Amino acid sequence: MPILYHSPQSRSETVAALARMLSDQIEIREVTVSRQDGTGAPDPANPHPEKKVPFLTDGAESVRERGAIITYLTDLYPEADLAPLPGEAGRGAYLSWLTYYHAVMEPIIIFDWAELSHPILHATFRDRQTMIDRLCEGLEPGPWLLGERFSAADMLCASPFHWFPEATPDVPAIRDWVARTTERMG
Amino acid sequence: MPILYHSPQSRSETVAALARMLSDQIEIREVTVSRQDGTGAPDPANPHPEKKVPFLTDGAESVRERGAIITYLTDLYPEADLAPLPGEAGRGAYLSWLTYYHAVMEPIIIFDWAELSHPILHATFRDRQTMIDRLCEGLEPGPWLLGERFSAADMLCASPFHWFPEATPDVPAIRDWVARTTERMG
Ligand SMILES: N[C@@H](CCC(=O)N[C@@H](CS)C(=O)NCC(=O)O)C(=O)O
Ligand SMILES: N[C@@H](CCC(=O)N[C@@H](CS)C(=O)NCC(=O)O)C(=O)O
Repeated sequence: MPILYHSPQSRSETVAALARMLSDQIEIREVTVSRQDGTGAPDPANPHPEKKVPFLTDGAESVRERGAIITYLTDLYPEADLAPLPGEAGRGAYLSWLTYYHAVMEPIIIFDWAELSHPILHATFRDRQTMIDRLCEGLEPGPWLLGERFSAADMLCASPFHWFPEATPDVPAIRDWVARTTERMG
Repeated sequence: MPILYHSPQSRSETVAALARMLSDQIEIREVTVSRQDGTGAPDPANPHPEKKVPFLTDGAESVRERGAIITYLTDLYPEADLAPLPGEAGRGAYLSWLTYYHAVMEPIIIFDWAELSHPILHATFRDRQTMIDRLCEGLEPGPWLLGERFSAADMLCASPFHWFPEATPDVPAIRDWVARTTERMG
């Protein structure tokens, strides 16, 4: 039985919500983590090598990074219909959005927060406006990133805007999608 | 038939090498890209929304980001045995390393190159030494990141050190693995 290490009000919330939507067979184990405001502390009970969350163990497997845990879990519980499987229509877009989140969205959001800019960062990751353009294009057919089909990619990509509403682009297509995603997650 | 948009001597080399190892049914189409040394130019023939490489199209699917393209292709050509499939032993580690590459390794390598440091970057991504520690732990059983099984995760995670040997950590376990990976790729 998979065990998900989770800390409330942290990056692991999205994965914990997904786990609850996928199956009641996934055990969610709460641990503490160090927080950027100075509160909290690493938890010896957390098997993550850097004491971060989320972290998933499943028998001999362990999985780190939200996009990887999400892909692993949606492939394991296909009956919940929260992602296209390999070979299904939309699998390419699903994997692209999960990876784009880690490769581009999270770095850009962090650089803005830290007020960092540098020509190398721009060449590699582009900028907030480019990210907004990509999301808007992706949502163009709508209502979800995969068109008619809601998926865990909506949950991951909308998550920073759910947690930091003040960081949400002031673009109706994005604000509405974030609200729709929160509602769909129950 | 999948079409991979590729530019020699760029981030798409790893994916082009993988495509050649997976199947002769993947068409590799060369395009130009803007390079950080000021040479090159965006190619109108490149369907990537930011004119980057790699980019994959496969009928109605398009896929961006190396980790996503790699997962998509290794699932499509399982007979090449370059990755565990969903449900197979090692799938969790495979997805974790591909995502860790984008979420942590590439940002850290880019920050070092741009000589950027900031408490928020450190809290989020940790640092080069932590990345080296994770790779060394991963390679501990060896000879590959998934133990006995060579996979496309070795190709992606070793790629920056193959291209920028001067950035390779001066740690025998890592140097030997990079050399082993280059040799295994032919
Ligand atoms: N790239 C990781 C990031 C995980 C992460 O940074 N989690 C934070 C929670 S907001 C954490 O556990 N921080 C504790 C720490 O840095 O010690 C992922 O997406 O899973
Ligand atoms: N996160 C992307 C990065 C792709 C990327 O930045 N590719 C470079 C090649 S080294 C590029 O095409 N640059 C052209 C440009 O930035 O216009 C991935 O991993 O696929």
